[in-house]
Amino acid sequence: MTEKTLSALQAEVDGWISSAGGGYWSPHVNVARLAEEVGELARLVNHLFGPKPKKATEEPQELGEELADILFVLICMANSQGIRLDAALDSVIAKVRSRDSHRFLPKGGIE
Amino acid sequence: MTEKTLSALQAEVDGWISSAGGGYWSPHVNVARLAEEVGELARLVNHLFGPKPKKATEEPQELGEELADILFVLICMANSQGIRLDAALDSVIAKVRSRDSHRFLPKGGIE
Amino acid sequence: MTEKTLSALQAEVDGWISSAGGGYWSPHVNVARLAEEVGELARLVNHLFGPKPKKATEEPQELGEELADILFVLICMANSQGIRLDAALDSVIAKVRSRDSHRFLPKGGIE
Amino acid sequence: MTEKTLSALQAEVDGWISSAGGGYWSPHVNVARLAEEVGELARLVNHLFGPKPKKATEEPQELGEELADILFVLICMANSQGIRLDAALDSVIAKVRSRDSHRFLPKGGIE
Repeated sequence: MTEKTLSALQAEVDGWISSAGGGYWSPHVNVARLAEEVGELARLVNHLFGPKPKKATEEPQELGEELADILFVLICMANSQGIRLDAALDSVIAKVRSRDSHRFLPKGGIE
Repeated sequence: MTEKTLSALQAEVDGWISSAGGGYWSPHVNVARLAEEVGELARLVNHLFGPKPKKATEEPQELGEELADILFVLICMANSQGIRLDAALDSVIAKVRSRDSHRFLPKGGIE
Repeated sequence: MTEKTLSALQAEVDGWISSAGGGYWSPHVNVARLAEEVGELARLVNHLFGPKPKKATEEPQELGEELADILFVLICMANSQGIRLDAALDSVIAKVRSRDSHRFLPKGGIE
Repeated sequence: MTEKTLSALQAEVDGWISSAGGGYWSPHVNVARLAEEVGELARLVNHLFGPKPKKATEEPQELGEELADILFVLICMANSQGIRLDAALDSVIAKVRSRDSHRFLPKGGIE
């Protein structure tokens, strides 16, 4: 099982894109890819958890793969713009903790 | 600067959600959140790279933060379904490499 | 209350875009706008029907307006590509009827 | 060629859904369907206008059909919530006209 840091995963994708993948796409193309991958996840969620019947002709898809497809596009977009996702995620987690913590703490709780 | 593994980041989010965050949302609610965050990224991309003029009243947003907001929802969704994102991402990277590698091999390459 | 045909609505938007709106945007920019508007709808749906608490600072939004924002982008995209939405919708309705009709008809039902 | 009002199109969909279609889906399911259809449009836009090569195995898709698939979900969602799309669109058009008109007026124009 992999135990890679997020920045190592970004570097791995970058190494491959640089050597063989033809370079990064533009931000707009990546937004469209993101919409496409989120759409595939949404379809699967409706199949698995909603009322839409699964077509017999559709090959089995897995939730993990759909989530990872989205993550792959995020990494491409971050790499193409020189962004470290782990640092950005730290900020988001800090923001969420700060914004929401008071709502959920037990009375008198200390964080 | 953080150097965390993706699974450690998943565990960090899980610890916080479990202790203070009120539990995970349903897959459909997470899909809606994902659409919301992708929409914010799309708006920012149009502002930064497209023809849509930035409104003066909008506070400055950063690309990294928007990408990390999406990643945060991905992590929540993966956690709620017991999915390890690093393993799933490994499969996606292997799939992309395998699917695309023949297109970029030098002529005469053997696959 | 308006009683306009869909093609008249397309023509109305076209007249305005041509005379004052600065021309149509590219398909990729319109996809990003569509993602943005769908994201706003998704946020509102989570506010109205999901577990996400509505922030006091958010101005009231209405479902109809969010749906119409999406429709407006659809019309812009259709116009920019010379597409009549009513004809395209006829095909979709026919496709849905044909695909689904046998599943829902009462036994012995005649359509 | 059809020349139907938007409200007639909403009624047509409603008649079919009521009689044979099994009833409307929940707002969250419709948001997921919307994300799915927008994703299909985004994929097609990347195929037609972007750098992503079209796979030979994909059946030809048309832009008009993808736009109409999105419109169909909009109509379902509007119907399920008792919303008239033409009235909502009127408000959006008025909003856009009002917000943007001053930017495009000839110099010396009075607003």
